[in-house]
Amino acid sequence: MTRFAIGVDLGGTNLRVAAVNENGGLFDHLSLETLVERGREDVVNRLTNGILELVNRWKDRYQLAGIGVGVPGIIRMREGILVASPNLPGWENFNIRGHIARKLNSPFFLENDANAAALGEKWIGAGKNVNHLCFLTMGTGIGGGLIFDGKIWHGVSGMAAELGHVTLYPGGRLCACGNKGCLEAYAAASAVVKAAQEILQAGTASEGLQKLANSGLKMTSARVYELAKEGDASAQEIFNQVGRALGMAIANFINIFDISTFILGGGAVEAWDAFEKSMFEEVALRSYVWRNDPREILKSSLGSQAGIFGAAYLAFQ
Amino acid sequence: MTRFAIGVDLGGTNLRVAAVNENGGLFDHLSLETLVERGREDVVNRLTNGILELVNRWKDRYQLAGIGVGVPGIIRMREGILVASPNLPGWENFNIRGHIARKLNSPFFLENDANAAALGEKWIGAGKNVNHLCFLTMGTGIGGGLIFDGKIWHGVSGMAAELGHVTLYPGGRLCACGNKGCLEAYAAASAVVKAAQEILQAGTASEGLQKLANSGLKMTSARVYELAKEGDASAQEIFNQVGRALGMAIANFINIFDISTFILGGGAVEAWDAFEKSMFEEVALRSYVWRNDPREILKSSLGSQAGIFGAAYLAFQ
Repeated sequence: MTRFAIGVDLGGTNLRVAAVNENGGLFDHLSLETLVERGREDVVNRLTNGILELVNRWKDRYQLAGIGVGVPGIIRMREGILVASPNLPGWENFNIRGHIARKLNSPFFLENDANAAALGEKWIGAGKNVNHLCFLTMGTGIGGGLIFDGKIWHGVSGMAAELGHVTLYPGGRLCACGNKGCLEAYAAASAVVKAAQEILQAGTASEGLQKLANSGLKMTSARVYELAKEGDASAQEIFNQVGRALGMAIANFINIFDISTFILGGGAVEAWDAFEKSMFEEVALRSYVWRNDPREILKSSLGSQAGIFGAAYLAFQ
Repeated sequence: MTRFAIGVDLGGTNLRVAAVNENGGLFDHLSLETLVERGREDVVNRLTNGILELVNRWKDRYQLAGIGVGVPGIIRMREGILVASPNLPGWENFNIRGHIARKLNSPFFLENDANAAALGEKWIGAGKNVNHLCFLTMGTGIGGGLIFDGKIWHGVSGMAAELGHVTLYPGGRLCACGNKGCLEAYAAASAVVKAAQEILQAGTASEGLQKLANSGLKMTSARVYELAKEGDASAQEIFNQVGRALGMAIANFINIFDISTFILGGGAVEAWDAFEKSMFEEVALRSYVWRNDPREILKSSLGSQAGIFGAAYLAFQ
């Protein structure tokens, strides 16, 4: 009997639930809204109802291998406690495993969303031919996932791979984590917006960036990227800064791990063209391991679905 | 029959060869000089003769488990090539495994010296009760070793754990590796001397530091530490800088690995008193994983013998 797994990706905005077979075929899915403003219990209800709906739809035809749930934030894996989650305000120190378990009445795997996405890329994505990879997801924040020997590296408390919070510029921009100069403060989608605002405040913005600021449209990473593509100097410098920060961080990770494959995912990776040049320059400048032996830095091949595939794979693994 | 192993630690100055039993008892050793100026062949001869001398002395009484050799520098593990070694000038791209094998006529394990020292600390040192540890050796340069699940993490080409070459200050002091602002350029023994020279050149040195500079004595990390202990302001600031650099690097490693144990070794760790305060402050400032869950930062318990123990343990493992 063919086996299937349920993979869930709980985001700050979207709640995705999918049914996936052992070959990585996604054959059914629900695209729900998180609606975090309705409260944790409500979100957990919607999440578990979505799982049960798909399980009930397919359990007679295929054998359920298991369920995996990816959630954003830092999880204490032993206790199943969500310690902190910037995308889920009010969920600090929430016993998420306990609450899901109560509704679900069947075992499941809980995982950090970036770790799940890293595992998805390892399973059927850009990292499917390697044993070790380092994954960075560039969204509102920067999440990280490390796959060593084909498995997620969790560290001792499940908080490993907080790769967005390595310090790059000791006296630099304040980060949401309380530190200054983190990778996240320079390369996340939110950092692109912050950099644009800094340039506007300094009065050194290009005409294009000023126009965007005065247009009444919301300043977003995607809009700044559009400007960069049109050749706007301020927008290009903003993405050069993104590239330098990514390059410096990846150079450090190469010197530390000596692995071959680095994968960038998340929405802001769409701006790849605008930051890749400065990223590769910075890696070469900073890492003599790279200069001896260059590595792959790749775009995610699963995009926004990496998380659900990885969550499902937790059950197959 | 009791087993024993030979552990070798080849340094830029000293060449240590030891016979160690399975309980970590060091029962015989040779303290030789490296005499790198006599050339690679000569050093390899002295090294292999030392091994053979100890093997022949004990092989009838105990069973030889094997031989481990720790060498400084970056090794391509598959090929056994020493790519680069700051402490062994002229040894670049030297097929060290092949040359030792030709003289030794028996199998042996080749390892980077800092990796070997990390393994020694894991076996019978400050890390003997943990599965994962991160080791930094503070000598002329800064070497690193990572033990994950009780084993050395080599990466894909054997160059992993070049922890002295993570960038901390992007526009900072030039490092021997060609990058600017590496940990090594701020926290190695040589960095202490460089910092002293910078302060002297800037004309802001304390009376004590100026006296030392004018004394005709060689400026060393140990002498700057003596000044710091006497309360000298310049010397104390130099070690505060060392502590901040170590703290920032360790904060990053905690956020990345989420492991519990960090061990500092090497000669410059003697100045622990002078840098620990700023080191712990910086870790707390930079790592929210640490703020949620502090970790151990310990002094090496094997000191300069960590390398020979680790090299010997390669044969027992």
